[in-house]
Amino acid sequence: MKFKRVKGTFDILPEEYRLYKYVEYSLSSLAELYGYSGVETPAFESLELLKAKNPSIVDQIYWFKDKGGREIGLRFDLTVPIARVIAENPQLPKPVRFYYFSKMWRYEEPQKLRYREFWQFGVELIGSSSIQADAEVISLAIDCLRQFGLKFKVFVNDRILLESILERLSIHKRLELFRIIDKREKLSSQAFLSQLRAIGLSAQQIERLMKIIEIRGDIERISMELEDLKSKKVEERLNVLKELVKLIEAYGSKNYLEFDLSVVRGLDYYTGIVFEIFSVEDNKRVGNAICGGGRYDNLIEIYAKQRIPATGFAIGVERLIELLKQTKSIPKEKKIKVLIISDPETSILMRRKLMGVGIIALIDVMGRNLSKNLEFADKQNIPYVIICKELEKQKGVAKVRDMIRGREVEIELDRLETYFKQLL
Amino acid sequence: MKFKRVKGTFDILPEEYRLYKYVEYSLSSLAELYGYSGVETPAFESLELLKAKNPSIVDQIYWFKDKGGREIGLRFDLTVPIARVIAENPQLPKPVRFYYFSKMWRYEEPQKLRYREFWQFGVELIGSSSIQADAEVISLAIDCLRQFGLKFKVFVNDRILLESILERLSIHKRLELFRIIDKREKLSSQAFLSQLRAIGLSAQQIERLMKIIEIRGDIERISMELEDLKSKKVEERLNVLKELVKLIEAYGSKNYLEFDLSVVRGLDYYTGIVFEIFSVEDNKRVGNAICGGGRYDNLIEIYAKQRIPATGFAIGVERLIELLKQTKSIPKEKKIKVLIISDPETSILMRRKLMGVGIIALIDVMGRNLSKNLEFADKQNIPYVIICKELEKQKGVAKVRDMIRGREVEIELDRLETYFKQLL
Repeated sequence: MKFKRVKGTFDILPEEYRLYKYVEYSLSSLAELYGYSGVETPAFESLELLKAKNPSIVDQIYWFKDKGGREIGLRFDLTVPIARVIAENPQLPKPVRFYYFSKMWRYEEPQKLRYREFWQFGVELIGSSSIQADAEVISLAIDCLRQFGLKFKVFVNDRILLESILERLSIHKRLELFRIIDKREKLSSQAFLSQLRAIGLSAQQIERLMKIIEIRGDIERISMELEDLKSKKVEERLNVLKELVKLIEAYGSKNYLEFDLSVVRGLDYYTGIVFEIFSVEDNKRVGNAICGGGRYDNLIEIYAKQRIPATGFAIGVERLIELLKQTKSIPKEKKIKVLIISDPETSILMRRKLMGVGIIALIDVMGRNLSKNLEFADKQNIPYVIICKELEKQKGVAKVRDMIRGREVEIELDRLETYFKQLL
Repeated sequence: MKFKRVKGTFDILPEEYRLYKYVEYSLSSLAELYGYSGVETPAFESLELLKAKNPSIVDQIYWFKDKGGREIGLRFDLTVPIARVIAENPQLPKPVRFYYFSKMWRYEEPQKLRYREFWQFGVELIGSSSIQADAEVISLAIDCLRQFGLKFKVFVNDRILLESILERLSIHKRLELFRIIDKREKLSSQAFLSQLRAIGLSAQQIERLMKIIEIRGDIERISMELEDLKSKKVEERLNVLKELVKLIEAYGSKNYLEFDLSVVRGLDYYTGIVFEIFSVEDNKRVGNAICGGGRYDNLIEIYAKQRIPATGFAIGVERLIELLKQTKSIPKEKKIKVLIISDPETSILMRRKLMGVGIIALIDVMGRNLSKNLEFADKQNIPYVIICKELEKQKGVAKVRDMIRGREVEIELDRLETYFKQLL
C-alpha cells in the first residue's frame, strides 16, 4: 500500500464512531448537570504559549513554522489552551466551569492504547482554591465513570502534603523528583534508583522516600503511617484531606477513594491535590490510568495578569472505550434500518415516508438485481429489505423481508409506515 | 496581551458550543436517516497523500516535518482522507455512505467567516456512478438545510456538459479554465479576462464562453439556451440532468434546484455533476456558498488499485451557524439551572437530589456571602437560587428565589425535587 495513515494515528470507522458519540454524550450530559459548559479551542497554539510552563514539553509537541514564520504547535492537552482562554476573557464570571471532548497530539512512542493523536474528555473548575472545588471535580470524575457500571478506584494524593514530608527529609529538587516518581512504573527499579541518586538523594533519603511512596489506604491509615513525620504543615494538609473525604462522602462516592502517596502526575503544572483513576479487579489496579487530574494554582497566572487557582481532570477516551468493550457496557443501536428495492422513483417516495417516521431507509443506487441487493443488506447487517417490483406495485403491496428470521410478509403500501412503527 | 490565539483561529465558548452541538446533532441525525454512518480521520496525513491529486494545493496546507522526518500536513478537507480510508479498507461493502463533522485547516488569508481552522459537515457516497447517487446526495444536502427553515437554492452544473460545450468551442486546458471560472467572483473583470487570455483563449472564444457561463435557470431553459451548441454528447448530458430533476422532484425538492453553468467548484478532483448552495433573498444569492459538492470519479483510484466513483458535499459550519443566528432559528436551552447556597455538605446532598431529576445544580465553591452569590447567579443567567442557611434548615425548608421574576417562595426540603420537576 503506497498511501497509509501516519504512524500513531487511527481512523474512527462507523462502529467506533458510534461509541465515541455515545461516550461524548454520556460524559457531556453529566458535566452539564454539574453546571459545566462545553468549550473547544484551536488545534494549535503558539509554541511559546504551549511551553511557557514547562519548556521540556517541546519534545512531545508536534510543532512547526507556518507559512508566515510563526512557531506553532499542536495542543498536547486542553488545560493549557483553556488557561489562555481564561486570560483572554477576563469578563467570564468566576468560578468558570468548562468541559471539553477534544483531540490532542503528543509525539511519543505509540503503544497499546497510547496514540500520537488521541481524544480526551475533561473538565476545568477555575477560580476557586477551596477543597469544595477539589471535591466537586473528583466527584464528577467518579460519576462520569460510574454511569457505565465500571469497577474503578480513585487514587488521591496531595503534592503539598508530599512536599511537606520531603521538607522534613531535607529533600529538595521536588519537581525533578515528582517527574521521576511519576514514571516509576515505566522504569526498572535499577533505573529508578539511579535517577534518584542523580538528583542528589542520599541512600538514607532514598530508603525513607521508598517507604513513603508505598503508603496507601484510607485517610486514617495515611495519618497513622505519617505519625513520625508530622510537622505543623503535614497536620494541616491531613486535615484538608479529611475534609475532602467528608465532602466526597456527601457525594456518595467515598468507597471509590483511596490515598496513594506515589501519585504525583507527570505534568509540572500541578500544585495540590492530584488523582488518578484506575480500573480495578480483585482490588488491584489494572492497565493504565483512565483518568488523571488535580489542582494547578500557578498555571493561569503565566497567561493572565493575576493568580487564578484551578482544578480539573481528563479522561482518556480510547482507554475508556476499550473498557466499555471489555465489560460490554454499550447500549444497542435502537433505530430500524431498511433497504428499499424498487424502481428509482418509487424507492425515493417510499424512503421519504419511512424517514418521516424515523426509520433509516437506504435505496439501491447501484442498479443491482435482487440477489446482489440482498447480499449487500446481509453484509451491512440491514435487518429489513422492502421489495416492490412491477408485480407488487400492481397489487398495491410491498414484500418485507426480515433478514434475521428469514421471513417475508406482504404489506399494503399505505400501511408500510405503520408496520415499521409498531416494530420500533 | 502576551499570549494570544493563532491568527485565523477562534475559540468556541459555551454559547457557541451549544450551537455547534445542535448543528452537529441535527445534521448527523438526518444523514443517519439516509443510511450514512459517521467517520473521523486523523488531523494530519502524509503530505504526499494530501497533494497526490493536485500538487498546487500545498500552498494552502499547513505542513511540516515531524520529529521522525516525515512530511505531514493538516487535512484541508475530509474527501481526500476518506478516499485513503476506502483504499485501506477494501472489505467495506459498496456503496459506502459516510458522514463527518470535523475540523479542517487551510492557510488562506482570513476573511469574514473564512478561518484558517474551520468545521465542515459532509457526506460521501462511494461506489456508485449512477445519477441516483447524485440525486441522493443533493437531496440530502437540501434536507440538511431545509430542517432549519432557511431560504436557499442549489445551483447545479455538470462538468461533463461544460467540457462537451468547450470541446465544441475548441477550448482545451479545461482544468485551468475551471479554476479561473471558480474564482471569477473574487477577480475584477479585467483580471478575469486577462487570465482567460493567458491560457490561450481567443477573443471570440472568450465572448462565447462569457455567454455560456451566464446561463441559469431550469433544465428546459438550459436546454433551450444550448440549442445551437448541441452535440450528441451535450444531448446525452442534458438527458442525464433531466433524469436528475425527475429524481429530485421525487425527493420533494425540485423548487430548490437551479442550473447555473458558471458553477464548477475549485478543487480539481470533481468530474461530473457539481453544486453549490447559497442562501437567497428576493431570489438573489447572498454571501458565500454554505455548501458545495459534486462527483469525483477519479480521486479514489489514486489511492486504491481500482477506479471507484463517488459523490458528496460539505457544509461550512461557521457559515451555517451565522445564518441560524441571523434567522433566529435556534431552539432555546430546555434544562433548568439552579445555584444552591448552603453549607458545603447540605449543598452537595441537595445537588445530588436535583441532578437526579435532570436539573443542572451548581453549588458555591468560593465561600461567598449571599449577595455575592446572587450576583454570580445573575451574571451567569441562572434562573433559580436555592437558599438554605441555619434558619431554613431548622424550619426544614429552603427558599427558592426566581431570579427573573424576583419572587421568593419557601419550599419544604423533601418537596424540592417535585417543585422543580413541575417547572420543567
